[in-house]
Amino acid sequence: MSILIALALQAAAPAPPPAPSPGEIVAAAPAGEWVAIAPADLLVMELAPLAKERPRTVVIQLMPPPFSQGWIGNIRKLAAAKWWDGTSVNRVQDNYVVQWGDATEKKPLPAGLATVAQSTYITGTPVKLRERWLDRLKVFDIVFDSASKKSDVQLDEINRASSFVRDSYGYMADNWQGWSIAGDEKSIWPVHCYAMVGVGRNLAPDTGSGAELYTVIGHAPRHLDRNIALVGRVIEGIEHLSSLPRGTEALGFYKTAQERVPILRIRLASDLPAAERPRFQYLNTEGPTFARYAEARANRRDPFFNVPAGGADICNIPVPVRRIQSSP
Amino acid sequence: MSILIALALQAAAPAPPPAPSPGEIVAAAPAGEWVAIAPADLLVMELAPLAKERPRTVVIQLMPPPFSQGWIGNIRKLAAAKWWDGTSVNRVQDNYVVQWGDATEKKPLPAGLATVAQSTYITGTPVKLRERWLDRLKVFDIVFDSASKKSDVQLDEINRASSFVRDSYGYMADNWQGWSIAGDEKSIWPVHCYAMVGVGRNLAPDTGSGAELYTVIGHAPRHLDRNIALVGRVIEGIEHLSSLPRGTEALGFYKTAQERVPILRIRLASDLPAAERPRFQYLNTEGPTFARYAEARANRRDPFFNVPAGGADICNIPVPVRRIQSSP
Repeated sequence: MSILIALALQAAAPAPPPAPSPGEIVAAAPAGEWVAIAPADLLVMELAPLAKERPRTVVIQLMPPPFSQGWIGNIRKLAAAKWWDGTSVNRVQDNYVVQWGDATEKKPLPAGLATVAQSTYITGTPVKLRERWLDRLKVFDIVFDSASKKSDVQLDEINRASSFVRDSYGYMADNWQGWSIAGDEKSIWPVHCYAMVGVGRNLAPDTGSGAELYTVIGHAPRHLDRNIALVGRVIEGIEHLSSLPRGTEALGFYKTAQERVPILRIRLASDLPAAERPRFQYLNTEGPTFARYAEARANRRDPFFNVPAGGADICNIPVPVRRIQSSP
Repeated sequence: MSILIALALQAAAPAPPPAPSPGEIVAAAPAGEWVAIAPADLLVMELAPLAKERPRTVVIQLMPPPFSQGWIGNIRKLAAAKWWDGTSVNRVQDNYVVQWGDATEKKPLPAGLATVAQSTYITGTPVKLRERWLDRLKVFDIVFDSASKKSDVQLDEINRASSFVRDSYGYMADNWQGWSIAGDEKSIWPVHCYAMVGVGRNLAPDTGSGAELYTVIGHAPRHLDRNIALVGRVIEGIEHLSSLPRGTEALGFYKTAQERVPILRIRLASDLPAAERPRFQYLNTEGPTFARYAEARANRRDPFFNVPAGGADICNIPVPVRRIQSSP
């Protein structure tokens, strides 16, 4: 092709299409980048329906190893024992958590629940994650070296570069094997993003069995990280919890029994008849689509946006999850 | 006193009291550290009461100069014209925003509203703030120098130190004159924390008049910073908005007119009879109590916590606000 024709073609070329939004990037992911969630990792909670409304179903995805498996083992036993049936949502604190379990605190627990040590709030940093983070540190190192004169402007440059290395809490933050985590070279832990589910406890850090659970309904309370066990996340129906009336007692507990929201049942999807099992997939966080999605979350270029943020905290890059037809 | 007696006294001394929580630190602030909010900076929104319930009142504090005064001038005119009376809450999107205004988009606006340029989404960095940030950069610089060999461990140290300089979005973040902001040496802007109130707009960045408003009811959507005007924050009654049923249409809009929540009236407190004016104060963000409170938010030492986070993102250090008696 002659240069002239090439230039003419270039001039005639239409304006480039608008940049895809993070949602459009995810929608275009090939099937092979979606990972099925095992039925034994899905907890299905049915709240009493509101008058004249459809059922209120909340679906929770439990975390895989190496995270929190002591509590998650207890949760599977509690579900198998139908322990939560007839319990209730007892606490709704605005911009914080919704909590459910036995309001009387007297219902006997099933036999065989483990007492789980607080040492398992964290777990060792996997080799691949450490390598990924060391690569990021190398990029940081290059900026760091190039700014050896350290004028204010150069310090600002280092500053900006470091935003890709660690978050406001002073640790690495990442999405790994489908979950949002933070950590350093020695250990990692899941983080308290919106909709994450954790284990209520008293003052002693090992007093939580998994019978009392909560989910985050506000800005990520990251100060709870490493102070309490996270076991999963709400992947469908969070609005049935987040839109409940706020409790008026201290910490958002409901004042009266009438305010509490009855829980009809909580079951593992694997304990439901095959035809009733909900099926979900999450986007592989190690795949190319997730990388493009995360970059687009940090730098929105879809038409509404004029100034890309240039970064995103880990809780603003939620792992995409989708429901799929129960009959394939 | 002999050494023996001193040792005996030491042995008999009771255990130190538990560290105060952030709330306890704020409760102990001297009266002089609280700043009155002017009645012209308070917007009082009355939603239609729910059956058999008390009124649903939401109070919004408008931002002071130099922030967003073009839109805030419009908002004062809209309130004076009683423009919002009879409009409604039309959109509730989970983990994002609640939005209110004229659902028909046809109600004529009062005369004299300004068209405000997007250039005022940001404002110049005040000298005092720049000085404060340069001091922080100097602390960072010292760590930076002391880690000249740049082993991985030392890089990690730099990393941790830099968390006190900038946030996950790559900018300085701070509380200044009562508001959460981000910025750099040239400009600053308010940030989209929970309960912040902003100006809905269409695609062109100057199409928002202030008639269509929203508030954040989820994890801080910081990608909206500098892309949309923030004008204030909900300081009382956010639960009347955050607990509304989520809309089922795209973007969380309500599907039917029946779902919309009627707004009875929105008034500036300065336009209410003196006896009906709510009175609020915020904690001076430049005072010693706020500094202690912010440090305690980043390093929780009250009894529930075992591992202080070591940092906090700006939206986890909300500026304390309190209601005071209307008749002093």
